[in-house]
Amino acid sequence: MYGNISIEKASQRKTMPDLAQNLGFGRHFTDHMFIMDYTEGRGWHDPRIVPYGPISHDPAAMIFHYGQAVFEGMKAFRTVSGEIALFRPEQNAKRLQRSSERLSIPTIDEAFVVEAIRTLVSLDKIWVPAKKGSSLYIRPFVIATEAMLGVRPSAQYSFIVIMSPVDAYYEEGLHPVNILVESYYARAVLGGTGNAKVAGNYAGSLKAQTLAKEHDCAQVLWLDAIEKKYLEEVGSMNVFFKIGGEVVTPSLSGSILDGITRSSIIHLLRNWGIPVTERKVSIDEIVQAHADGTLEEAYGTGTAAVVSPIGSLLWNGNRMEINGGQTGELVERLYLEITGIQEGTRPDQFGWLTYCE
Amino acid sequence: MYGNISIEKASQRKTMPDLAQNLGFGRHFTDHMFIMDYTEGRGWHDPRIVPYGPISHDPAAMIFHYGQAVFEGMKAFRTVSGEIALFRPEQNAKRLQRSSERLSIPTIDEAFVVEAIRTLVSLDKIWVPAKKGSSLYIRPFVIATEAMLGVRPSAQYSFIVIMSPVDAYYEEGLHPVNILVESYYARAVLGGTGNAKVAGNYAGSLKAQTLAKEHDCAQVLWLDAIEKKYLEEVGSMNVFFKIGGEVVTPSLSGSILDGITRSSIIHLLRNWGIPVTERKVSIDEIVQAHADGTLEEAYGTGTAAVVSPIGSLLWNGNRMEINGGQTGELVERLYLEITGIQEGTRPDQFGWLTYCE
Repeated sequence: MYGNISIEKASQRKTMPDLAQNLGFGRHFTDHMFIMDYTEGRGWHDPRIVPYGPISHDPAAMIFHYGQAVFEGMKAFRTVSGEIALFRPEQNAKRLQRSSERLSIPTIDEAFVVEAIRTLVSLDKIWVPAKKGSSLYIRPFVIATEAMLGVRPSAQYSFIVIMSPVDAYYEEGLHPVNILVESYYARAVLGGTGNAKVAGNYAGSLKAQTLAKEHDCAQVLWLDAIEKKYLEEVGSMNVFFKIGGEVVTPSLSGSILDGITRSSIIHLLRNWGIPVTERKVSIDEIVQAHADGTLEEAYGTGTAAVVSPIGSLLWNGNRMEINGGQTGELVERLYLEITGIQEGTRPDQFGWLTYCE
Repeated sequence: MYGNISIEKASQRKTMPDLAQNLGFGRHFTDHMFIMDYTEGRGWHDPRIVPYGPISHDPAAMIFHYGQAVFEGMKAFRTVSGEIALFRPEQNAKRLQRSSERLSIPTIDEAFVVEAIRTLVSLDKIWVPAKKGSSLYIRPFVIATEAMLGVRPSAQYSFIVIMSPVDAYYEEGLHPVNILVESYYARAVLGGTGNAKVAGNYAGSLKAQTLAKEHDCAQVLWLDAIEKKYLEEVGSMNVFFKIGGEVVTPSLSGSILDGITRSSIIHLLRNWGIPVTERKVSIDEIVQAHADGTLEEAYGTGTAAVVSPIGSLLWNGNRMEINGGQTGELVERLYLEITGIQEGTRPDQFGWLTYCE
């Protein structure tokens, strides 16, 4: 489609960190990376795998000025039988297209994105950790590279994939965190870029995140920017609540990211016969459910942690503890099911895994 | 403060384009650039001027992923007496601080920013064009450079200044443009980053800009994201209207950039005794003023064009022509005054110019 992927192998492999401990998140990178360039009039071209190393750009390259950049986050797992599997990579490739469209970036064929990633993972497969819960985090991203200061879509781009071996997010098992309900800062608004995975969304969220930490909270729960009433996301994760036996999650209103873990969880819950509804969820409703004792569980969902139980919500100075600050039954069941599928100890009944090689 | 600025001169100057014609905007760059780095624990350090050239970063550098980047835009002018002047650079330095704070980027001393720019302009002063209306566009920017994929403020940054000789925005004099009033896409919202000059704001605006061009419009007029009723900015400029003898411009509501040209124009109008009000301005009010014949002039304001007259507004499929599609008297007077101060043909009565060397 864009030509064959050429491979230039590193002359020598890096000194690898101990894949069994202290990897952290996104600190170590594998031996190789994938790159493909776009030039207006020529399209995407020159797909290649090269040794991991610095990239060089003119200081006027648009990525440094106007934030025209989209990305994805996904993982490769070493299953118990020793195979290497990707979790729903075609969903990431589809979302990369949607994000690109929102930022006027030329899209890349979905199947090609998956193939590029499979090829890269296969080449660097010794970097996929075997320890339970660990994985190879994969970061595909597209950046605007034209050296020109006019504000308009760039005429040149690079699509790059880098990979980082990472620990289980919760080394000692699921660990509920405190969350601050953010009443001033906004993550996104209808008509903005909140439903796309674009660079600028994350920069804008840092200040609120820093303020949350000052309140002994790990993250913020974002409210909608218009009425400051409806829940949107928690940090950079989707959010779920179990209230009176029913699971609810904010519907994809146009300012919320369509999370792949989110959709997998909705699918699992339906498959298990547990009622789950996508709808507007107000903070008032959560306060009421907490007051009357029907708020059973709350958790964030995303690729990095899979699920992240919420131990308490801090709202208008009041701390609402959820499930006694403990990990709930349902969130634990979801975690075990998804990580079980990923590590190959539970059947992949929905065909979510794509194998490498 | 951050140490002396070291200067490494280019071994040979670039082949310079003809500074009297066809410079375009942000396409040619001078011989040198300024760089200073930040490292957590050490602060800003190593201010230096080096030959203009590519910058190299790890592909995991945060700028490529999370949009943690702020910038400024300003100009140096060659006055009729041959001196080189900056227009209100201390205002840009102040705004760079405010933008940095919004994105959790460590700020830089204002006076130092101005001094760095003066030093760079002085070194590359042969690049400041002499032709009437042309100037040296100056782009200071700060980017997050730490190579780490966790979502949190970067521990490393670079502050860079590059410069580009540019033509007058309107080579043949002021030229009114058509503008599309944007009813779906949003530029910013209260609690977001709209009042800071951050990279992501611009990426998010590209799609609406592209759609505007399909309607034969040069740019969009942004409405507020909450009620879709109140005017915010036009493209990446502030916007002014003259209605029944009074000038109005949207107040700085929290989602509008505090433009330096905007504040200069308000200052001039007050000095001239022309009534000017900063307040909420609704699109309904503009439609009504157009219908009853009191909408006299409309224009955008910004560093690149100084002022940009609006010839017509396209709203809900109706085209409202303003001032017969011609450049208005007041916008022309403002243009002549500001460019006159910049080129040294009118007295700098407010002390807006800062001279280099």
